[in-house]
Amino acid sequence: MSSEPFTLRWGILGCGGIATTFTKDLLIDPRTRDAFDIRHVVVAAATSTSAQRAQDFCTNVGVPPNTAKAYGSYKELVEDPDVDIVYVATPHSHHYQHARLVLAAGKHVLIEKPITVTAEQCKELRKLAREKKRFMMEAVWTRFFPLSREVCSIIQSSRLGTITRVFADFSFWNDVEKEFGKEHRMINPELAGGALLDLGIYSLTWVFMACYYCQQPGRKDGHGKTMDKKEEPVVVSAVSKGETGVDETTTVLLHWKGTGAHAVAGTSIRVATTPNAEHVGGDAVRIQGTLGDLTVNYAPRPRTYTLVPAANEKRGKPADFEYEVVDKFKDIPGGGHGMFWEADECARCVRDGRMESEVCGLEETEVLMGVMDQVRKNGGILYPERISSLEYPLEGFGI
Amino acid sequence: MSSEPFTLRWGILGCGGIATTFTKDLLIDPRTRDAFDIRHVVVAAATSTSAQRAQDFCTNVGVPPNTAKAYGSYKELVEDPDVDIVYVATPHSHHYQHARLVLAAGKHVLIEKPITVTAEQCKELRKLAREKKRFMMEAVWTRFFPLSREVCSIIQSSRLGTITRVFADFSFWNDVEKEFGKEHRMINPELAGGALLDLGIYSLTWVFMACYYCQQPGRKDGHGKTMDKKEEPVVVSAVSKGETGVDETTTVLLHWKGTGAHAVAGTSIRVATTPNAEHVGGDAVRIQGTLGDLTVNYAPRPRTYTLVPAANEKRGKPADFEYEVVDKFKDIPGGGHGMFWEADECARCVRDGRMESEVCGLEETEVLMGVMDQVRKNGGILYPERISSLEYPLEGFGI
Repeated sequence: MSSEPFTLRWGILGCGGIATTFTKDLLIDPRTRDAFDIRHVVVAAATSTSAQRAQDFCTNVGVPPNTAKAYGSYKELVEDPDVDIVYVATPHSHHYQHARLVLAAGKHVLIEKPITVTAEQCKELRKLAREKKRFMMEAVWTRFFPLSREVCSIIQSSRLGTITRVFADFSFWNDVEKEFGKEHRMINPELAGGALLDLGIYSLTWVFMACYYCQQPGRKDGHGKTMDKKEEPVVVSAVSKGETGVDETTTVLLHWKGTGAHAVAGTSIRVATTPNAEHVGGDAVRIQGTLGDLTVNYAPRPRTYTLVPAANEKRGKPADFEYEVVDKFKDIPGGGHGMFWEADECARCVRDGRMESEVCGLEETEVLMGVMDQVRKNGGILYPERISSLEYPLEGFGI
Repeated sequence: MSSEPFTLRWGILGCGGIATTFTKDLLIDPRTRDAFDIRHVVVAAATSTSAQRAQDFCTNVGVPPNTAKAYGSYKELVEDPDVDIVYVATPHSHHYQHARLVLAAGKHVLIEKPITVTAEQCKELRKLAREKKRFMMEAVWTRFFPLSREVCSIIQSSRLGTITRVFADFSFWNDVEKEFGKEHRMINPELAGGALLDLGIYSLTWVFMACYYCQQPGRKDGHGKTMDKKEEPVVVSAVSKGETGVDETTTVLLHWKGTGAHAVAGTSIRVATTPNAEHVGGDAVRIQGTLGDLTVNYAPRPRTYTLVPAANEKRGKPADFEYEVVDKFKDIPGGGHGMFWEADECARCVRDGRMESEVCGLEETEVLMGVMDQVRKNGGILYPERISSLEYPLEGFGI
């Protein structure tokens, strides 16, 4: 590459665990993953009250000394003229308020998942981003793994035939009482706690990648039908609530009536997808087409997939693939966590003046948020009015 | 054993594929499976119109020459005084009429699964069996496998902790158009076709064994709650219909609100549980408790199970088992198919004057039939009035 890489200047809003992982990934040289066209720099970080904590964060994640400003105020961060894009890394409950703050300041924004607490909040943000002509994306890093891109390409090429069923799960085996008590963000309704928004979104992401993202309106599907636009699923579900009133185990059954696909997305903080790492029973994601299965080892950080051609002599047309475990993505380049691929997408979109990513578009984000709304409604989960509100600004969000 | 074994004299009503498998199993000496207390003899078989076909059936399955009568009439069969119990092996659509015929003649009856087309028909049969004081059971052979009994005992002993999720699937990868055309019983609404009643009942059987049968009213569950009686699940589902109007792919999500358990029972004739026998990805049944998983290799004929202790150092109480693949039931004794275990249960119940099996009781059968009713209703599957009717006798059923 002879031309200079495009440089995207990041501000980090919120300095907790996910910000740490993301920012460390940002600091890995993109050339280690063969990305020569873009570059990331961290120019600022902020907590809501302590510049010192923001400074400690920068030091801890390895931002080179004296290259980033540290703020004890989100407002100062978003108004910093050196910041091109802000990564919102606060709890889910705070995303709507903080994303509005960023957009109001005229900055691009990447918002940790789930993008908001409700689909309505997402819609409102989307409208605002359009008005402001700023790039906005939900930080569904999983979608940008090379493996995820390859799986979508396999599905869209019809190599699996017609997608008929998808099973996806992302669950952990926790001692809820002991590990989370009654205040932890995982189970605190004030912070939009519960398995669904925090973990279930990964199961739903795989279901949506296979059954929604990969729909190709205008093209004939396996049944010879042509759809004008992407079809939304019918949603039914089961929710088991814990003592604090949030969901501990949630199972979502989605039905695409037009394509005929069924999908089950599971999540739990009581039983694990893989209860015992030494004895892995099956893969976390299973995508079943009429010509065979594709399974993925782990929902959030997919690194191997397996192709299983259906074997049935009565079938006329066989699959055009053999059984294969594809593990070329086993190691994440540069020793990263895998979040930099979504950051690269942000950089390219901003560089090219695009307001949305094609891989993780806001229309799909909004539909998926609507599914989670429906599931909570079915299960009688109600979050506090305050964190579901469209009002802005609200007190107590550090704005 | 010094005392003579109890002998149960069987009449076979319907001479198709399932009758062949069952009767071959009946003819295997029970001593090969260490059953010394009972014996089975086949004393008669009948088709609705041809004694010759019944005779050919007897010859084909290996009934010793001149030991069984062959009838071309179901009525003659059920009135044969040598017959103690009749095995109803006609299509699902005909079970209600034929079971009534058997009970009206004062005989015990074992009815191939599903016991009827609707829960209402099941209820009516149950009432009649009680009035007539005759033994009646749905032929859910899977429940009587030693492995199934052992799995239930593990669950009931709480070794898996609280059962939180169950996934069970029984599906085949068929070229539906080529293999079944439009008349085959698998897809013919006149014969109560579709995946659910024929295959899905096995997935539901595992779900029910784990989440319903194993409930122990009067005992405290994992949450410290005590239930008076067994709890029925909330049922939601997705159904994809084929051209003939029956279900091709059905996914059922059951939620036991009291115990907190979620269960997914799947079935399809478009994609398989195991699409490729050479590369088995995971087990067909997965039962997840708070202390670990138990998986079963294959839903109808379970022969190995796997125990996976949950591994999490944050958990206080660990499971009292190690990782283990239990394959001691790999070979079915006597070279059988595994249907004789249910026949043995029939013999013992009849011998002991019991009207119902404790392992496969009619109350549970009726609840499970009700689940399938609900699933078909949710999916808009309507069978012809005739085969769902409570009227008896109806013309055209060979009565």
